[in-house]
Amino acid sequence: MSVNSDHYDVLIEGGWIFTSKGLVKEALAVDNGIIANIGEKVSADRVIDAKNGIVMPGLINTHTHLGMTLLRGYADDFPLEQWLNEYIWPMEAKLDERAVYIGSLLGCLEMIKSGTTTFADMYIHMDGAARAVEKSGLRGLLSYGMIELGDGARAERELKTGKEFVKKWNNAANGRITTAYGPHAPNTCSPEFLTRVRECSDKDGVGIHTHLAETKTEINEMKSKYGMSPVRLLDKIGFFGPDVLAAHCVWLSEGDIKILNKNDVKVAHNPTSNMKLGSGIAPVPELMKDGITVALGTDGCASNNDLDMFREMKTTALLHKVHKLDPTMISARDALNMATINGAIALGINAGELAVGRKADIIIVDTNKPHLTPKHDMVSHLVYCAKGSDVSTCIVDGKILMENYELTMLNESKIMADAEKVTRDLMNKVEKGQTRVI
Amino acid sequence: MSVNSDHYDVLIEGGWIFTSKGLVKEALAVDNGIIANIGEKVSADRVIDAKNGIVMPGLINTHTHLGMTLLRGYADDFPLEQWLNEYIWPMEAKLDERAVYIGSLLGCLEMIKSGTTTFADMYIHMDGAARAVEKSGLRGLLSYGMIELGDGARAERELKTGKEFVKKWNNAANGRITTAYGPHAPNTCSPEFLTRVRECSDKDGVGIHTHLAETKTEINEMKSKYGMSPVRLLDKIGFFGPDVLAAHCVWLSEGDIKILNKNDVKVAHNPTSNMKLGSGIAPVPELMKDGITVALGTDGCASNNDLDMFREMKTTALLHKVHKLDPTMISARDALNMATINGAIALGINAGELAVGRKADIIIVDTNKPHLTPKHDMVSHLVYCAKGSDVSTCIVDGKILMENYELTMLNESKIMADAEKVTRDLMNKVEKGQTRVI
Repeated sequence: MSVNSDHYDVLIEGGWIFTSKGLVKEALAVDNGIIANIGEKVSADRVIDAKNGIVMPGLINTHTHLGMTLLRGYADDFPLEQWLNEYIWPMEAKLDERAVYIGSLLGCLEMIKSGTTTFADMYIHMDGAARAVEKSGLRGLLSYGMIELGDGARAERELKTGKEFVKKWNNAANGRITTAYGPHAPNTCSPEFLTRVRECSDKDGVGIHTHLAETKTEINEMKSKYGMSPVRLLDKIGFFGPDVLAAHCVWLSEGDIKILNKNDVKVAHNPTSNMKLGSGIAPVPELMKDGITVALGTDGCASNNDLDMFREMKTTALLHKVHKLDPTMISARDALNMATINGAIALGINAGELAVGRKADIIIVDTNKPHLTPKHDMVSHLVYCAKGSDVSTCIVDGKILMENYELTMLNESKIMADAEKVTRDLMNKVEKGQTRVI
Repeated sequence: MSVNSDHYDVLIEGGWIFTSKGLVKEALAVDNGIIANIGEKVSADRVIDAKNGIVMPGLINTHTHLGMTLLRGYADDFPLEQWLNEYIWPMEAKLDERAVYIGSLLGCLEMIKSGTTTFADMYIHMDGAARAVEKSGLRGLLSYGMIELGDGARAERELKTGKEFVKKWNNAANGRITTAYGPHAPNTCSPEFLTRVRECSDKDGVGIHTHLAETKTEINEMKSKYGMSPVRLLDKIGFFGPDVLAAHCVWLSEGDIKILNKNDVKVAHNPTSNMKLGSGIAPVPELMKDGITVALGTDGCASNNDLDMFREMKTTALLHKVHKLDPTMISARDALNMATINGAIALGINAGELAVGRKADIIIVDTNKPHLTPKHDMVSHLVYCAKGSDVSTCIVDGKILMENYELTMLNESKIMADAEKVTRDLMNKVEKGQTRVI
């Protein structure tokens, strides 16, 4: 299996290549950002020794708010309303593009070091996030998070910002940046606004990233306001489609699940965030049974508080087993698929597995660790034992972002120092007064 | 705050010392295995630069089966009966003291590297586990797991092994090894046997480590056999006392909780294992509300599959929040207490906090990491962001077992190689036939 080439950009050898046929002890070659050969030990400009590690597709984080990385550990264990009103929103009101850039860059750094190669972001001051993606070498599906609250003037402003962002950044950074429209949620955006968003999305040929059915409160609000669940409402107004990435989907009826399935909506499951905020447990086994694409996300660092997709895989498998009191729910393989190939499908990216022709978004997991010993079943180990800190090498679009734990693109200590400083500045501003964004 | 000494064994400086007063930027001195001074920068044989990290009490894992570390990833995602009958028991039937020694040593290695300084073990071929504790430098409360099933001859054999183990190893390894009687569970040991165990425990002045109310099946079995819950039965026969460490306690009625409280029984909560096996969610907030000492455990690597107590802390906080749909359940501080001071109380060890006079069981968490940046609240970071792999230094009984990520006592690559080999040998034996232990 190879595409035509005599000399390749990168050859990875000495590791176990995680393919659809299982783990194979072969070499993998990358050319022009694409996986070009699996099998032969071809000649290449750069040879990486995987040292008996697992060479696998980079993990895909399908829902986060990367600028919020600055808010990691800022406020925990509070009731939702208090958390938002007293902590998150006042802080966010003071954010600016530079803060989001620094916060996003810190998030990118953490993702590279923990094996995530692509992420879907929805936040504010998104030029900052896009610049971070550009600089970091990661792949991102970015959206400006629009909140309209039925306010006409605000609708115009938000849509304008959203459109400008799509126009400016779609397919930027050598195609590593794609964009989407990001209407925040059906309880913070009116049906009229959401209809306009759908039209913009169709016109510009980009998808939609939104929150959906995250809390019981949201469902109750929607039912009392519109007499139906948010899923039914969005279906009614023709909002759904295969290009909709719906984060959370915790509170769904059987009918809601049918609607999501009919429209081929992609679901971003965020178990840690749903647990930490006490939101609830999404019906993932039911969604999967119906054939709906369920991918994984960490959500933002204010509600997780890390971006480690290995941890998210384990949590996913554990949560649904205990919820159903059934250890066969969400196997290790299911969780791994959710974090790789399902993520790629959800974001419309030709990645998520190691196969010739796919984008060269590849990580190497260093298995020479006590907690990954002995070797019985590597899928089990990847999901139930591995940590982000076991990732030794990270390649995105064929470019090496970290090799043998050494970063090649980013200056780790500078980013951490910048993040500390910009956070201190932010906190000083918050302490001086003013509150919430919405 | 200091005890009398002019010259100390070890001085830790340059870090944030985690004391009951909060984080203080002071020095901590160790002498003769005891925390001897917090405050002054005294003279010492050995000086450790904590490099702005967090100096904190070592984590305490109150329930595991360390020999099972060899079974990590051997069988996952199966229904409980199939898992036990077809995988775990056949494998265990082939274990011997050397295999348990190697498996336990691998577990000790993983614990040292992830910040656990003390653990409570219950398993078979326990001389192997005790030798591993001796060699590793860790602290362990060890018990031979006795299963009697109402069989008279077996009762004698099991009790004999249990007694001999206590006699041989209690207070061994400079007091780092303490012992307990380990009757497996009330559904695998008859009331008559448990009464005899209680007598032995009283006579020998050592505690009891047992499984209790882990699965719904166990409760149903007990109710149909004895007409009451296992907790009520154990209370009735006078089994309980403050020296009983009961692992799991998932299925408890209000009455059961009152009984545990009345007897000052210590609970080892094992959220990951309970989730992975689909056992259920223990009523930890209710136990805590009643003032019962709840500590944390990982359980064995066949049902977790790691020994990372940092991961266990995060899982604990997340699980109870989502179970109660309330983000105020089990705060970061609660989880940290469960993994430190509550663990020390549960195991009867004078450790679990950094205070003068306590045993010098200390770890340093390296906070110079992207996923621990920015610094808002270090308790939150320790529970919600830190990983075992952030532990740079591990000290037990005043002895340095790892400093700046370098192991001082154990040969990591040899232990990993031995573990692979002994596991391959085991698997060959299992494949050749024979099944289950009980």
